[in-house]
Amino acid sequence: MDYNSMCPKYEAAAEMLGKKWTGLIIRVLLGGPKRFKDIKTQIPEISDRVLTERMKELEDYCVIQRNVYPEKPVRIEYILTEKGKELTPVITAIQTWSEKWMD
Amino acid sequence: MDYNSMCPKYEAAAEMLGKKWTGLIIRVLLGGPKRFKDIKTQIPEISDRVLTERMKELEDYCVIQRNVYPEKPVRIEYILTEKGKELTPVITAIQTWSEKWMD
Repeated sequence: MDYNSMCPKYEAAAEMLGKKWTGLIIRVLLGGPKRFKDIKTQIPEISDRVLTERMKELEDYCVIQRNVYPEKPVRIEYILTEKGKELTPVITAIQTWSEKWMD
Repeated sequence: MDYNSMCPKYEAAAEMLGKKWTGLIIRVLLGGPKRFKDIKTQIPEISDRVLTERMKELEDYCVIQRNVYPEKPVRIEYILTEKGKELTPVITAIQTWSEKWMD
């Protein structure tokens, strides 16, 4: 196994996934397009500041996409990209493992 | 989906996996029992201080076990526990996703 060549991409992904709330935000978005306030409703403990920060990070990673609909009032929705949707097996695996093993 | 009930265990697992070198250390140990210096040889970029810290954390999580053999000189080996071995699908899923999607 070539540990060094697999390292940087793996580490970047693990670091992204390891940030608090990231997994939960992705799981909420697996349920379909959501507005900021919809996500807040499903994760009430998260602050506006931290949710804004996480959404920006996930957008920078191209894991989510921010769609602006020029209605009145303007509607902004977040959806998972293909890259984001393909995190499903990762999140499921962490979920399964943590349910079994974490106290 | 009950987001709140699944949250703390998931977050703890994701945080553990998100620490730099953790995934790589687990992958090295998937190859069998290793001494500290064996791990260093396979991950030359890691410092002694950080590797010691990570090994202690993984031991506290019961993901690895530290075995001391009273030989002369004393031999200390690290192995994955069952809990650690069952991280294989998690690490494989992160690996697969990151190879495909991370730059």
